[in-house]
Amino acid sequence: MQLARVVGNVVTTRKDENLAAVTLLILQPIAPDGTDMGRTLVAVDAAGAGVGERVFFVRGKEASFPFHPVEVPTDAGVVGIVDHWSLT
Amino acid sequence: MQLARVVGNVVTTRKDENLAAVTLLILQPIAPDGTDMGRTLVAVDAAGAGVGERVFFVRGKEASFPFHPVEVPTDAGVVGIVDHWSLT
Amino acid sequence: MQLARVVGNVVTTRKDENLAAVTLLILQPIAPDGTDMGRTLVAVDAAGAGVGERVFFVRGKEASFPFHPVEVPTDAGVVGIVDHWSLT
Amino acid sequence: MQLARVVGNVVTTRKDENLAAVTLLILQPIAPDGTDMGRTLVAVDAAGAGVGERVFFVRGKEASFPFHPVEVPTDAGVVGIVDHWSLT
Amino acid sequence: MQLARVVGNVVTTRKDENLAAVTLLILQPIAPDGTDMGRTLVAVDAAGAGVGERVFFVRGKEASFPFHPVEVPTDAGVVGIVDHWSLT
Repeated sequence: MQLARVVGNVVTTRKDENLAAVTLLILQPIAPDGTDMGRTLVAVDAAGAGVGERVFFVRGKEASFPFHPVEVPTDAGVVGIVDHWSLT
Repeated sequence: MQLARVVGNVVTTRKDENLAAVTLLILQPIAPDGTDMGRTLVAVDAAGAGVGERVFFVRGKEASFPFHPVEVPTDAGVVGIVDHWSLT
Repeated sequence: MQLARVVGNVVTTRKDENLAAVTLLILQPIAPDGTDMGRTLVAVDAAGAGVGERVFFVRGKEASFPFHPVEVPTDAGVVGIVDHWSLT
Repeated sequence: MQLARVVGNVVTTRKDENLAAVTLLILQPIAPDGTDMGRTLVAVDAAGAGVGERVFFVRGKEASFPFHPVEVPTDAGVVGIVDHWSLT
Repeated sequence: MQLARVVGNVVTTRKDENLAAVTLLILQPIAPDGTDMGRTLVAVDAAGAGVGERVFFVRGKEASFPFHPVEVPTDAGVVGIVDHWSLT
């Protein structure tokens, strides 16, 4: 999983029906020091996150677990909103 | 998932039988600002996309979900056509 | 999925039994303009491809779909031989 | 799998319910010579690891195996704490 | 799959119980010309490989197939020992 900042969202009307009720967010992955790290991506939201919040997301089929039994065809999903983290 | 632009298609007659009825598109991934980002790839189409359209696609086994119960051997698939997106 | 050129093959006698009857090819991924793109890899063949042919291959568990019900332990497989492709 | 050093942890209250009882660690992957290698990531802990310990972790759906039958939506998990390793 | 050279092994006592009987090898991926290619990684051994041997390994959940029905939480596994390969 990686930390990320929610930077936008995507509007789409023609899509797979299992994505119909799903919110699509644009994420910018970030390093633990808060700087941007790597490419933006589109993820489904399973945590009720909004633009500007810091979240962590999962890649792969696991991103569809929170929507079972619906088989959401996604490879990235926000699964938690971060309160804070600590580094040593 | 990532945003992409459909830039071409692939014609193939000798292939796995579960790919027989599937359209194969060449995608160029793009960043939210519309610029190219990363390598082109071949994806199956589950959204009825055409050359020139902006789409978002999924990587991994999830790309075969829209074709169930057929087990399409693919690792990338277009699952939605983008109307627009917003960035903050 | 990605386009590739078959550039060689691998001979191995000691291997997982579910790989026993499988042909192993060395692939060089290529871009739509035909130039090499990224690293060579070893893939199983589900399309009857030979050295010198242009193919497309799939990564991940999906590469084992054409061999069901045998659980071939592979993460890459040739699933089609390319006739031609078009770019815009 | 990769070797890593546990460098921190993440606190989050709003998250997928299947992550409720799971500890989230920040990992820095390391090379066999002990130097940092690649980006930090967030992983679930299935081995009782603590900050400062050297561990190895798994990526992908496999990271959720130790928590079955709970379907933990994670793509990275610590599965062992390293005593030592040898190189030739 | 990729070609690799076995360069070491990992000793660990505290780990997931499904990894208890599994040998952990350190691999250096190699290109078909025998030169190092990419980062070392830790893999389980399903082929009886030893340090110094040239092998090929698989990434992802497929790496756990040879151990069924045990659900080994691994994302990389040696599945064959290479006799030789040919390039054109």
